[in-house]
Amino acid sequence: MRPTSAELDAADPLARYRSRFVSVDDAAVAAYLDGNSLGRPLRVTAARLAEFIERPWGTRLIRSWDEGWLVEPTSLGDRLAALTLGAASGQTIVADSTSVMLYKLLRAAVDARHGRDEILVDRGNFPTDRFVVEGIAAERGLTIRWLDAPHAGGVCPSDVAAAISRRTAAVLLSHVAYRSGFLADLPAITGIVHDEGALVLWDLCHSVGVVPIEVDAAQVDLAVGCTYKYLNGGPGAPAFGYIAAGLQDRLQQPIWGWMGADEPFAMAERYRPATGVRRFISGTPPVLAMQPLKDMLDLIGEAGLAAVRAKSIALTEHAIALCDERLSSLGAVLASPRDPAERGSHVTIDHPRLAEVTAALWQEGVIPDFRPPNGIRIGLSPLSTSFCELEHGVDAIARLLREPIAAG
Amino acid sequence: MRPTSAELDAADPLARYRSRFVSVDDAAVAAYLDGNSLGRPLRVTAARLAEFIERPWGTRLIRSWDEGWLVEPTSLGDRLAALTLGAASGQTIVADSTSVMLYKLLRAAVDARHGRDEILVDRGNFPTDRFVVEGIAAERGLTIRWLDAPHAGGVCPSDVAAAISRRTAAVLLSHVAYRSGFLADLPAITGIVHDEGALVLWDLCHSVGVVPIEVDAAQVDLAVGCTYKYLNGGPGAPAFGYIAAGLQDRLQQPIWGWMGADEPFAMAERYRPATGVRRFISGTPPVLAMQPLKDMLDLIGEAGLAAVRAKSIALTEHAIALCDERLSSLGAVLASPRDPAERGSHVTIDHPRLAEVTAALWQEGVIPDFRPPNGIRIGLSPLSTSFCELEHGVDAIARLLREPIAAG
Repeated sequence: MRPTSAELDAADPLARYRSRFVSVDDAAVAAYLDGNSLGRPLRVTAARLAEFIERPWGTRLIRSWDEGWLVEPTSLGDRLAALTLGAASGQTIVADSTSVMLYKLLRAAVDARHGRDEILVDRGNFPTDRFVVEGIAAERGLTIRWLDAPHAGGVCPSDVAAAISRRTAAVLLSHVAYRSGFLADLPAITGIVHDEGALVLWDLCHSVGVVPIEVDAAQVDLAVGCTYKYLNGGPGAPAFGYIAAGLQDRLQQPIWGWMGADEPFAMAERYRPATGVRRFISGTPPVLAMQPLKDMLDLIGEAGLAAVRAKSIALTEHAIALCDERLSSLGAVLASPRDPAERGSHVTIDHPRLAEVTAALWQEGVIPDFRPPNGIRIGLSPLSTSFCELEHGVDAIARLLREPIAAG
Repeated sequence: MRPTSAELDAADPLARYRSRFVSVDDAAVAAYLDGNSLGRPLRVTAARLAEFIERPWGTRLIRSWDEGWLVEPTSLGDRLAALTLGAASGQTIVADSTSVMLYKLLRAAVDARHGRDEILVDRGNFPTDRFVVEGIAAERGLTIRWLDAPHAGGVCPSDVAAAISRRTAAVLLSHVAYRSGFLADLPAITGIVHDEGALVLWDLCHSVGVVPIEVDAAQVDLAVGCTYKYLNGGPGAPAFGYIAAGLQDRLQQPIWGWMGADEPFAMAERYRPATGVRRFISGTPPVLAMQPLKDMLDLIGEAGLAAVRAKSIALTEHAIALCDERLSSLGAVLASPRDPAERGSHVTIDHPRLAEVTAALWQEGVIPDFRPPNGIRIGLSPLSTSFCELEHGVDAIARLLREPIAAG
């Protein structure tokens, strides 16, 4: 017999971390099931920001640029890389939005493979990924080769192998699919892309901080990700970009800002890109906006990413079991892989009435999100989500699916 | 006889606002003279961020996107526009870094003037502006026409008139020059650019919040600016972009992110730009990083921009008088215009020893900044700077110029 939610919570070695987050005991948030969209803030973050305002910003003032801020895009990038990406230092920056970082790195990739005229991307990829590809294809005169994703909402190595060719300049895929939660075989696909001489750019938005990633070991070329989902950096927190050391001096990104130049304060007459990963920076680092991320990286360091992944699997397994038990008889259909090895940290269920159900859930403080055409995503952030909270949310979905909802 | 600093402070109608800023009474910051680089935080900002963490982020969570965050790039842009730009609503967004926003708007401009092959920019412009132009010229096959700036470190209408032609696609100039503080004649130059059928992009980084700007009245096409100087938004706070209403649907920016698409949450198959100013947005809005700016906009609204400009002129006049009186005999040379109508809110003095002097000043809490090859910028943020503070700073410079500095 499966253990109950209460038993799972009691046995959970990460349960003690949950109280470090804001509003976990607030009745107004009965079940937060969207940590894959916006991670909860840590309680310590308010104090960190107050201290930041008082001292480095308010008292050290511009001296803080020399005292740490200037290197923060790379020092924080290195820390993020070590804790979550499996990447050595000197390859990761924190900067820009994910969309802008995607644009910069994909432009760098296709420009470096000049003469090849295709970009490979899947139809199930997140809108910004697809839109950035569309824009770059239009301006560089490239063709988009669209991959369908027949395998439980994700792309398999065989899909890529069938579509890639010597015409392919770059391949852009999500490590975990934003809708289905499908976890791609990153090492195998990266190898297939390299066999054809193309560059791969991985979108890690839905895996970073919750699925161990070994970008160096897999010889990934480029990656981007966001820091406001499982890294709890706050709404619109800066993105990160990873550029493999061996590629850095052979790539040129298009937005030549002063912070990516060699010796920014020399105010040089002409742009000369910095050596190394700094050349992928453009504007002034968003230092204030980087601060909350530090608290979550500290916590991941303390808990360990392997333990986070283990709880993530336990949570998604429990979610699927509860859905099977309490939602499938109501017509809900699982849209996520059943094999945990093929799944990130969210589970999607489809049902024609879930748009209206989501609106009703939010009213009562049960907060998953809705993804068209008819899916609820149950996003499970292991350090802030309890098994009982998950069950409460699934039960609320079941209750609302049983009740007819009054027309608004 | 000129009034003393103490008399000027006593008569200053804005003096009462100074105590609203962090560390103004802290002996560790004896004179902060770099508000043109990084504005001081307001005391209320820590409470605003704590509340932000507790409620919209921590408790409303993703529901906050629907409850205000999604429109924050335009609602905050509209407020900034009304208070500081002289712009009607629907033309201003807060997003990205200044470098990225510059890239997007300049690309949109030159692409809209396809067939014209020159970009006009001045050699004295801020590095990021020049570097972005270099990058765009390289990728679009355009020629850069460099303007020299013979007039007190800035560009005059006659300089532009002599250089512009039917080959000019776009002109990128700074309203206030970052080094000299020269204030360009924005309406006249804008008219000259339009007479040749080109588009003008104004960099307002060093004027916004301290010099009244009437972009609508002057029929400016495009503008960018930063919010961490006289708008006190914090280190690396997001930039803003202004796109004249009549141009919006005729321009296309290159970074096609989901937040610039029509109906972002429809997760559409293809990118279709939003109508209006939202099409210039790319990624997820940096909502947390936008918060401190609100406090300074509130304060500017309370004090009134005309009063801010009046004090700015009084401060720079006082700075020049003090420099004439106490620094010129030591060999320092004013590098800023003497006519306040041609000057923003900072004053630059040149002297061969100012690099070492700046380092020594920082040690004692007197904080201007150094700009190569040999200049100190005295940046005067009217709402947080007192006349006595300014005098203390000038006296410290004089003392250090008189003393030989020991080799480090």
